[in-house]
Amino acid sequence: MKLGVLLFEGFELLDVFGPLEMFGQIDGLSIDMIAIEAGAIKSAQGPAVMAQEDISKNTNYELILIPGGIGTRKEVENIDIMNWILVRSLKAKYIASVCTGSALLAKAGVLDGKKATTNKLAFSWVSSQGPNTNWIGKARWVQDGNIFSSAGVSAGIDMSLALIEEIWGKRKAESIADWAEYQWNSNPDDDAFAAKHGL
Amino acid sequence: MKLGVLLFEGFELLDVFGPLEMFGQIDGLSIDMIAIEAGAIKSAQGPAVMAQEDISKNTNYELILIPGGIGTRKEVENIDIMNWILVRSLKAKYIASVCTGSALLAKAGVLDGKKATTNKLAFSWVSSQGPNTNWIGKARWVQDGNIFSSAGVSAGIDMSLALIEEIWGKRKAESIADWAEYQWNSNPDDDAFAAKHGL
Repeated sequence: MKLGVLLFEGFELLDVFGPLEMFGQIDGLSIDMIAIEAGAIKSAQGPAVMAQEDISKNTNYELILIPGGIGTRKEVENIDIMNWILVRSLKAKYIASVCTGSALLAKAGVLDGKKATTNKLAFSWVSSQGPNTNWIGKARWVQDGNIFSSAGVSAGIDMSLALIEEIWGKRKAESIADWAEYQWNSNPDDDAFAAKHGL
Repeated sequence: MKLGVLLFEGFELLDVFGPLEMFGQIDGLSIDMIAIEAGAIKSAQGPAVMAQEDISKNTNYELILIPGGIGTRKEVENIDIMNWILVRSLKAKYIASVCTGSALLAKAGVLDGKKATTNKLAFSWVSSQGPNTNWIGKARWVQDGNIFSSAGVSAGIDMSLALIEEIWGKRKAESIADWAEYQWNSNPDDDAFAAKHGL
């Protein structure tokens, strides 16, 4: 099984590496980092990560992960990224977004008629990218069929464990959380931040 | 203020990027990624991260962060890494390790006569690297003066927020956690994993 992670300038570090810490414990799952062009891609926080593949290769992935970050503001206008996300989403078995990554899914059309969530502090901008999406304000993550979207940054870890549970079972998800000494919030409705941020 | 993060082949992704997500929100803090040789450094999970600086430059950092990961097993025998850690630790204002990163600090001599913690599942190996260290089994993280060591993987995020509190105040740490929708375990003694892992 292959997991493809989209990178772009200004991606948020924990949106990518929280999930990858958890998915990285699955035997036989390979992880590809993909960008417009292969090479070093600078995160929102500064450190750069290598993308080994560029989107023009159109490799098929059973799982795709779309992170958020300040760079999403630019990428919603990037036709090549939008096309890649739409085509890859149609072929993928599971689609996951973290934080403002759901703005990219929404703008690409993947979330039309679906329910989804996103970062609390960027809620109005993200929801404007998907007028035909049922945006849920109070959620740690939202599952609609094969699409998992998480709230801001850290929520991506909880969502990833839920996706691992969906594919590999609850025991696997719990054993990975224990191994990583991570206190998994396994209830998607348990969201302490909606009220704090006025949603 | 400068934060230097040591990278080596087989570093654990979340050990590095959990902390960097939090430190990345501090205005005026620059982040350098350092390795034996500058270039792409492969993590334990596969994805590679760019180190822009090599250890021979001997740049001074007010903060240094030493991650863990399977690569620590090899690096405890690496004289150049051990020397870099010892010299940098003597000059740094604060020293932080995540997970088995404390094995590197211990072997370099930084933890002699100090108390520290580490990953539960690697506890006996790590503690064997520092026979003169007071190893604490039940702790989310341990502070001894200017040295902060965390338990396994995810615990590095809680510790980083504690170090941010130490330097920039509790309000700053809490606002970063809220921004990142992270439920901070701010009590170093609240450790759910010691009992689970038989410590």
